[in-house]
Amino acid sequence: MALIAPIDASFLLMETREQPMHVGGLQIFQLPDGAGPDYVGDLYRRLLTYDTLRGLYRRRPSMPSNILGDLWWKDERDKDVDLEYHVRLSALPKPGRVRELLELVSRLHGTLLDRHRPLWEFHLIEGLEDNRFATYGKVHHALVDGIRGTQESAGQYSPDPAAELPPMWAPRDKPASARTKAESSTERRAPWRAAAELVGDVAGVAPTLMKVFTDSISKDSAAVAFTAPKTMLNVSLTGARRFAAQSWPIDRIKKVAKANGATINDVVLAMCSGALRRYLVANDALPTKSLIAAVPVALPVADTSREGGNAVTMVLSRLATEIADPLERLTAIRASMLTAKESMAGRSTLQINAVGMATTIVPTGLNLIPGYVAYGRTPYNLVISNVPGPREPLYWNGARLLGWYPVSVPTEGLALNMTVLSYADNMEFGLTGCRRSVPHLQHLLDYLEDSLAELEQ
Amino acid sequence: MALIAPIDASFLLMETREQPMHVGGLQIFQLPDGAGPDYVGDLYRRLLTYDTLRGLYRRRPSMPSNILGDLWWKDERDKDVDLEYHVRLSALPKPGRVRELLELVSRLHGTLLDRHRPLWEFHLIEGLEDNRFATYGKVHHALVDGIRGTQESAGQYSPDPAAELPPMWAPRDKPASARTKAESSTERRAPWRAAAELVGDVAGVAPTLMKVFTDSISKDSAAVAFTAPKTMLNVSLTGARRFAAQSWPIDRIKKVAKANGATINDVVLAMCSGALRRYLVANDALPTKSLIAAVPVALPVADTSREGGNAVTMVLSRLATEIADPLERLTAIRASMLTAKESMAGRSTLQINAVGMATTIVPTGLNLIPGYVAYGRTPYNLVISNVPGPREPLYWNGARLLGWYPVSVPTEGLALNMTVLSYADNMEFGLTGCRRSVPHLQHLLDYLEDSLAELEQ
Repeated sequence: MALIAPIDASFLLMETREQPMHVGGLQIFQLPDGAGPDYVGDLYRRLLTYDTLRGLYRRRPSMPSNILGDLWWKDERDKDVDLEYHVRLSALPKPGRVRELLELVSRLHGTLLDRHRPLWEFHLIEGLEDNRFATYGKVHHALVDGIRGTQESAGQYSPDPAAELPPMWAPRDKPASARTKAESSTERRAPWRAAAELVGDVAGVAPTLMKVFTDSISKDSAAVAFTAPKTMLNVSLTGARRFAAQSWPIDRIKKVAKANGATINDVVLAMCSGALRRYLVANDALPTKSLIAAVPVALPVADTSREGGNAVTMVLSRLATEIADPLERLTAIRASMLTAKESMAGRSTLQINAVGMATTIVPTGLNLIPGYVAYGRTPYNLVISNVPGPREPLYWNGARLLGWYPVSVPTEGLALNMTVLSYADNMEFGLTGCRRSVPHLQHLLDYLEDSLAELEQ
Repeated sequence: MALIAPIDASFLLMETREQPMHVGGLQIFQLPDGAGPDYVGDLYRRLLTYDTLRGLYRRRPSMPSNILGDLWWKDERDKDVDLEYHVRLSALPKPGRVRELLELVSRLHGTLLDRHRPLWEFHLIEGLEDNRFATYGKVHHALVDGIRGTQESAGQYSPDPAAELPPMWAPRDKPASARTKAESSTERRAPWRAAAELVGDVAGVAPTLMKVFTDSISKDSAAVAFTAPKTMLNVSLTGARRFAAQSWPIDRIKKVAKANGATINDVVLAMCSGALRRYLVANDALPTKSLIAAVPVALPVADTSREGGNAVTMVLSRLATEIADPLERLTAIRASMLTAKESMAGRSTLQINAVGMATTIVPTGLNLIPGYVAYGRTPYNLVISNVPGPREPLYWNGARLLGWYPVSVPTEGLALNMTVLSYADNMEFGLTGCRRSVPHLQHLLDYLEDSLAELEQ
């Protein structure tokens, strides 16, 4: 039994049918050459033989039906974990396009994890056309944040097609040959792993934590806060989810950034902004004021007392959605991000985190108060995370990882989340929304392409 | 807006993550001759064109997140129902055996219905081997009981392979030719439909209803109550479900009944009893006292004031699980059922229902009181329902209905439910259990066969 840290407990306490609090990831793989029709089924049966589990994958709330019980973790013994419950084989209906895959992932992401068991599921999915298959994993936010979840997945992959690694829930206790490959792969991943701490815990905190952050808020740097317009995205949630995902070549984005003196992150924000503008116009719901995005960023810091030495915080950026011209919009976003970062420069890590939390995460807690979403003010309209990932192609026991999309957590009052992961030569966009409040979510994929094409012209 | 009847509201109020309160059904069909590879996909797209819905399928709690809101129904407009959310296409992983189908149905039955939407789902499932496909439907118990659910499914089927009927959620407004076939089919179903009212509302009632029934309890006829042993089946629930199903020829059961002067229902109970005995022995958990089953029965009545004129109640029957000899066991079950029925004879419908409710359903309500399952006494160990169904083979738009299995509701303290539906020449057993508390549920299928084979010898 171990005490659940307050922030982790908050993710359990704030979870409802309408707001499942797990983070997920979708991976698409190429079947290896010569893979037979039973490849995925055989892989599934092999995965089930890994029945020794790491602590993270044996952990559940001590008293699942009791709110007080949420405050202690219980670590199950291996033999008490029903591995076939957690690791599941599914199939896509014909014709097995990405469309059918996204539909299945939308369903899987919308159901609650069972608190009577360790808080994770791993789905192996066959029937994807063009000799591909997929995996979808979900882990409760009380156990991992988006980054740690990404790292957990990454631990299974190797740049070496010949490497054989145990699945994420199993200890790294393979023969020495495989271990060497795994470790070298880990080292090669180290740079992006540090950078990846960017994304932070953005899904929300319990109201009990608010006072701490409110006390330490620095008013001037929070200037942009509390000015976001109310939009169709800032409404109450229902439990069902819609997930859409697509890859864009980093080179296309990089060229636009270079031509305009902007960062890659600025261009990602501009793509999202242009797509949101089109989406809101199509729904006759574009506000006259700019949408505000909460964006996790890393900052140079004087105080390195924090473990890891990275200052991870959230800044608020205007998305300039009221501006029709795409390049003008990019310029406005770039300026807004620069101002936000400058206002933070020179502060200690602790201050920066406190400011970031107070202006971004804390107001999200307010959304949990009944009626607040309907009548309160919205500090920002959505979270847009850009997570640096591994730049080399990876393999899962010989199957090449083609695409890797984050499946994130919409929260009460924030019905859409846009998370972007860079992997190999692509930027992988994962859009997760409330199925009711964000209709035709998949149209945003077309609008993202339109938006990038406009910036290229 | 319409007031939700108290008993229906109780099914909403008592629902938790651990105790989803929906009833379900699994149907297996033969693909019609000449069906192409896109048959199921085409059928799915055709089903989605039925976007005018009957009231039952547009109904949801008025305020889903609010307990008080559960007391009123809101009827959505057709255009506000997201039909693609409710009607879903799924596929089985290879090799697509019944095993993979039962695994999928177990998962689907374990997830909660979304209260922000009308309380039903309908799943079309492709990839079942031997040129078959399947459907699984679930509807909240607050909207229908097991019988009404069965009737809703039946409304889609016809004994005429050429008949084309709308899906259950659509009004019966097809061309006259189809309508005539539908109506004649309904008439032919009438006898079993009346008998089918047997199954009753067995899933439980809210504690607030208890006093009414307690006041009218007649002590002598409740003699068998409160004597059931505590077993491994009478424990707290977790949210995950396991479902197993199999068909047995009615002729086999009928022969055993005839040879022993018993009813078909007695033999069904004896099969269940023998299977449970083997299962408990295998788990080293056979109690020395007999298990007690709650069994819905129809009784001859003097008072016909109740609509329909049927007296539907529950009786408690000893399952004689402590007796090793199968024929002795059958004799003991027969005697117990006779006593239970005799003690009810001559009473008015109202009395019978009150007695039935007080001895069976009401104690189930007690199980909802925290700690009661762990420390309280158990009035019975499980519900075994035997529902008479249609005796002629049915078709769904040309696809022959091969098997039809009820997927029922385990409740707190009652981790296993056995429901049997007669259809065509078979008795269709559907076993629904808590995945954790009833391990290896599927072994009960083998034990049912063993049990019937013993009785035949």
